[in-house]
Amino acid sequence: MTDFTICPGFMAAGVAAQINKKGVIDLGLIYSEKDASVAGVFTKSLVQAAPVILDKKRVKSGKCRAIIVNSGNANCCTGEDGMAHAVAMTEFIASSLDLPEEKVLLASTGVIGEPFPINRVETAVPGLIEALSPHGFENFARSIMTTDTVKKLIFRHKEINGKKITVTGVAKGAGMIRPDMATMLCFICTDAGIAPDLLHTLLLSATEKSFNKITIDGDTSTNDTVIIMANNDSRVTIENKTEINIFQQLLNDLLLALAKMLVKDGEGVTKFVEVIVKGAENNHDAGKIADTIANSNLVKTAFFGEDANWGRIIAAAGRAGAQVNQDLIDIYFNDVMMVKNGMGCGKDVEALATKVLKKSEFVLTLDLNIKSGFASVFTCDFSVDYVKINANYRT
Amino acid sequence: MTDFTICPGFMAAGVAAQINKKGVIDLGLIYSEKDASVAGVFTKSLVQAAPVILDKKRVKSGKCRAIIVNSGNANCCTGEDGMAHAVAMTEFIASSLDLPEEKVLLASTGVIGEPFPINRVETAVPGLIEALSPHGFENFARSIMTTDTVKKLIFRHKEINGKKITVTGVAKGAGMIRPDMATMLCFICTDAGIAPDLLHTLLLSATEKSFNKITIDGDTSTNDTVIIMANNDSRVTIENKTEINIFQQLLNDLLLALAKMLVKDGEGVTKFVEVIVKGAENNHDAGKIADTIANSNLVKTAFFGEDANWGRIIAAAGRAGAQVNQDLIDIYFNDVMMVKNGMGCGKDVEALATKVLKKSEFVLTLDLNIKSGFASVFTCDFSVDYVKINANYRT
Repeated sequence: MTDFTICPGFMAAGVAAQINKKGVIDLGLIYSEKDASVAGVFTKSLVQAAPVILDKKRVKSGKCRAIIVNSGNANCCTGEDGMAHAVAMTEFIASSLDLPEEKVLLASTGVIGEPFPINRVETAVPGLIEALSPHGFENFARSIMTTDTVKKLIFRHKEINGKKITVTGVAKGAGMIRPDMATMLCFICTDAGIAPDLLHTLLLSATEKSFNKITIDGDTSTNDTVIIMANNDSRVTIENKTEINIFQQLLNDLLLALAKMLVKDGEGVTKFVEVIVKGAENNHDAGKIADTIANSNLVKTAFFGEDANWGRIIAAAGRAGAQVNQDLIDIYFNDVMMVKNGMGCGKDVEALATKVLKKSEFVLTLDLNIKSGFASVFTCDFSVDYVKINANYRT
Repeated sequence: MTDFTICPGFMAAGVAAQINKKGVIDLGLIYSEKDASVAGVFTKSLVQAAPVILDKKRVKSGKCRAIIVNSGNANCCTGEDGMAHAVAMTEFIASSLDLPEEKVLLASTGVIGEPFPINRVETAVPGLIEALSPHGFENFARSIMTTDTVKKLIFRHKEINGKKITVTGVAKGAGMIRPDMATMLCFICTDAGIAPDLLHTLLLSATEKSFNKITIDGDTSTNDTVIIMANNDSRVTIENKTEINIFQQLLNDLLLALAKMLVKDGEGVTKFVEVIVKGAENNHDAGKIADTIANSNLVKTAFFGEDANWGRIIAAAGRAGAQVNQDLIDIYFNDVMMVKNGMGCGKDVEALATKVLKKSEFVLTLDLNIKSGFASVFTCDFSVDYVKINANYRT
């Protein structure tokens, strides 16, 4: 019988290494039984953690066998010691599993600027390797959680040329999504066979349609990392146009599902909102407006208060730095048209809109009625609990 | 004996007109006994309230006699009716006081998109005019408050050429400062004599050094308005370089004091923080970094939690889109150096920094150690109460 919770040719594990003070599972490992193609997308911040700096060098080889990951300490702003510790983390894995050090990548998430507890990693590595199992993704997913309340792990399967391939994705997010996102990590494993350059192209495209809808370019944290490994265990090679299209769609769907899970599990989140802007001068303008609305604290607190306060929405649109004509703007909550030509549609309609806002998921649409520029982003409400969580994160 | 709480040649008033549901004073008037020079600075948002659109036209004449202001309704996104109501508001004052309509300006603040209750204004105008008094600035200051908890009213006096001049400033802010600022209104009266063009230049310069340190260019609301009137009641004309410098300094000080009052009275604010960035590549870069830090929800919630979480500060600097070298960054809380060359200075220093964070006012300084670019902005912490206030603003 097929086991739908493994990714053939991969093993994973997660153990408690006491890096995170709470004694939770905080050290994880993904291992490919054979050389895998690898590609990565990393933070564009100018302040980067040691693991990011190291990965960016190593990923260029296009080959990878293992990824070691910890939560509880970001290994960022830790100077030369931090870099030495990042290298050491990969050495522990390389020597234990008899791999070239260059084929081991790593990632860290947690508090910035604390000395990295490399000794705790060293002590925990034998147990971590002992725990490697095809069913280890559950514990791996736990190992990267910080303020996440649920683990994010998805398996997807697809037939290509009559043979089954698997794609597995694990992510962590929480923290506020953009612009103050805490570290976003995502690791994808597939048993398809894909050349590294193509893998990179496919990953970039899927990231653009998923994580970049919640974490606009440049507004990333010091440790953000997305890595994909393809080990060809299935002997299904993704080469021709049809195969590429199928795989791209599969990858897009997987990352979009993970991105949505990140938003829904954002700190203190009670509502998931898709913000659509259409009818803009161009897509760039639409993106600016969607982004300004999705990041407005006043809009997001109104979502939390289930208040159809479209004045805050139209005000955000007006200051987005994109072309708008206030007399042409229409606003919808799901299918309820709340604003027509820049003016409210009255109390009866507001009652209907308020019903939409009471849902845990809804779509906010602005039609600027200028041209056909379009953008969509995912956001969430902004609750009292967000502040509580973030005021006390380190204590 | 000199009365220090009047501005010679001006009268003011504030009454309850039932525009704001809570029955508070919500309609205000400033009246100059003679023609005053006038200058204004308005929101750069592309969505503008009717009063802003009207004022921008009328202020060009350089002359003004009265300003009528209400809280409780922003008269924004109210279409043709809204503009007709804005004009009507000024007509009521013009006909009652026998002034040309063009010499009456106005401002509104409150909820966007609600029909404007012009009848309530009309009903209240006779009482408003009846209430005009040299001592009416107190009630006027009350009339523009929305979620403000204290009124912002300052009188300043100065001798120029052996004669006393007075400058009076009234402001309202609250709401979140940038980027989601609620309406910021400020009205300045002086009995100095200043030509309109010069008045505009002086006002722009003072605004740049005060309100624009809390409400960066473009990130303004639909109704933001700063208006200054100079009625020459003192017969002190501000013309030569010495006089101009004295008056500019007086105006700068006044607006800076009001701007600080706005931040301190921000919704749910418990801490007032000046963010200084120095050693940047240039002033523009310094401004971008100071702005990103000052607007980071994660940084601001850490302030609220009295947590010296400099990792969030350095992460904000890294993603500001300005040049930084993480290995050169120093961070201070007041005089406590918490970070040197991008690395923490240890637990003993952190204890000292935490003491600074427990104060209600402190200075956060980043020295980038690149060149000499400098910027300073004012910000506040981000508290549980902010979310509570804004989730329930309309109810």
